[in-house]
Amino acid sequence: MDNRPIGIFDSGVGGLTVFKEIRRLLPQENIIYFGDTARVPYGNKSPLVVQKYSLEIAKFLEMQNVKMIVIACNTASALALSTLRNEVRIPVIGVIEPGVRAAIKSAQNNSIAVIGTRATINSEAYQNRIKRLRSSINVIAIPCPLFVPIVEENLMNTKLADDALDMYLSKLKKTDIKSIILACTHYPLLKDKISSFFEGEINLVDSAYETAKEVNETLEARRITTEQDSSGKESFFVSDSPETFSSIAANFLSRPIDGKCVFHPWAEF
Amino acid sequence: MDNRPIGIFDSGVGGLTVFKEIRRLLPQENIIYFGDTARVPYGNKSPLVVQKYSLEIAKFLEMQNVKMIVIACNTASALALSTLRNEVRIPVIGVIEPGVRAAIKSAQNNSIAVIGTRATINSEAYQNRIKRLRSSINVIAIPCPLFVPIVEENLMNTKLADDALDMYLSKLKKTDIKSIILACTHYPLLKDKISSFFEGEINLVDSAYETAKEVNETLEARRITTEQDSSGKESFFVSDSPETFSSIAANFLSRPIDGKCVFHPWAEF
Repeated sequence: MDNRPIGIFDSGVGGLTVFKEIRRLLPQENIIYFGDTARVPYGNKSPLVVQKYSLEIAKFLEMQNVKMIVIACNTASALALSTLRNEVRIPVIGVIEPGVRAAIKSAQNNSIAVIGTRATINSEAYQNRIKRLRSSINVIAIPCPLFVPIVEENLMNTKLADDALDMYLSKLKKTDIKSIILACTHYPLLKDKISSFFEGEINLVDSAYETAKEVNETLEARRITTEQDSSGKESFFVSDSPETFSSIAANFLSRPIDGKCVFHPWAEF
Repeated sequence: MDNRPIGIFDSGVGGLTVFKEIRRLLPQENIIYFGDTARVPYGNKSPLVVQKYSLEIAKFLEMQNVKMIVIACNTASALALSTLRNEVRIPVIGVIEPGVRAAIKSAQNNSIAVIGTRATINSEAYQNRIKRLRSSINVIAIPCPLFVPIVEENLMNTKLADDALDMYLSKLKKTDIKSIILACTHYPLLKDKISSFFEGEINLVDSAYETAKEVNETLEARRITTEQDSSGKESFFVSDSPETFSSIAANFLSRPIDGKCVFHPWAEF
């Protein structure tokens, strides 16, 4: 039993989809979320920079006495997971591995599609991981760069979003793909739209949900679940405006954030 | 007469629209362009950070022996122009003032629209500048956040771009606005589309073009134009991948970049 909080971090607000799934699955756990909003996005930064930033955040979370760190950012999961595992003493979980494992399990016909930002797709982190676990699987990877601004601007239910879906995903309709990994933290907010686009005949692997399941399993395996029976506390730290973060956060969580949101400037600012 | 190069900088590739207009107007001038692609975007960063970054680049350009600095970035123009003017000894020109002056000159009926990123519109830099020069003018400011990814993804001629134009600009059709300031470096690439949307009955003030005119006037007033009669040299420095920059640059310039593109990492990397 361990009542210390779970630490989650992301380059910005996107990781709140992971936060939301962890909160849903583990309502008693205390959670600390760090959004590096002053340095977002990570996707176009070099591996060394992403490792440096991720390590700074991990050290900050360790100082907050967390019992586990969840990297809720695809880029940081691809580039900094092993760095963090070497440098901190608590368990570290990324978003890639859980999504990949779930997709392989559900792949009915040896084909999986991966959709994400240009940076995530170009990094080939998902493609390589899938190939390493099941080399026979055919992977179709599609960058969908407009999806993030569409979600952040809350334009999910517009004609523009329909056009974007059609532009990026219509080619998948001509394949035998039955499983798509949502390889970007923002995409779960488009899940219903994507599902309707394929008329429900597709399995959407939500990395956020799969990661939450892995967090739960890890806590249980290590016997470090909380013994609280009341609702867990939530606190948020961001490296730029807490007001901006809080207003976008409500969109991601479908409710206002519960608990305070604190500004944490980096030393260089 | 002064054969030293003109220095232009931006947070990324967008400032190439300013570069292009300066190159067109002043084909004999040597130009050095700095794109801070590792730290893009500036729009969501705090004023102190933008001033620090802008000053670092200005000092770098001074070391390259430039005779003038052009801030081809709306955010840096809004937040760091006076800082740079205090700290460097050569003339410094931003993109806001030239666009505002041209818009006021052409405003037929005391109304001007300003379109830009959410950060530029929220900063109120254009609105305040217009009001200070002509307080009677009515300003309608509209953030168009999807326009930048549409340009960067080269989606200008898609249904999605039409939807975005309609979503952001249809309300202007119901007003008496005859003049729109394109207050974002990326927007000149949408000029034809915006012009057709208003069936040609609108005056689009292109900050890039107006800035180039001001550069020309400043060079002439200070008698520091080049005496070269051959084509000026071009060189590019970027703080992240030169390959990525070069490939997107071709889209902005309608030609490949001429001259080398050099990687310039900041000390912290």
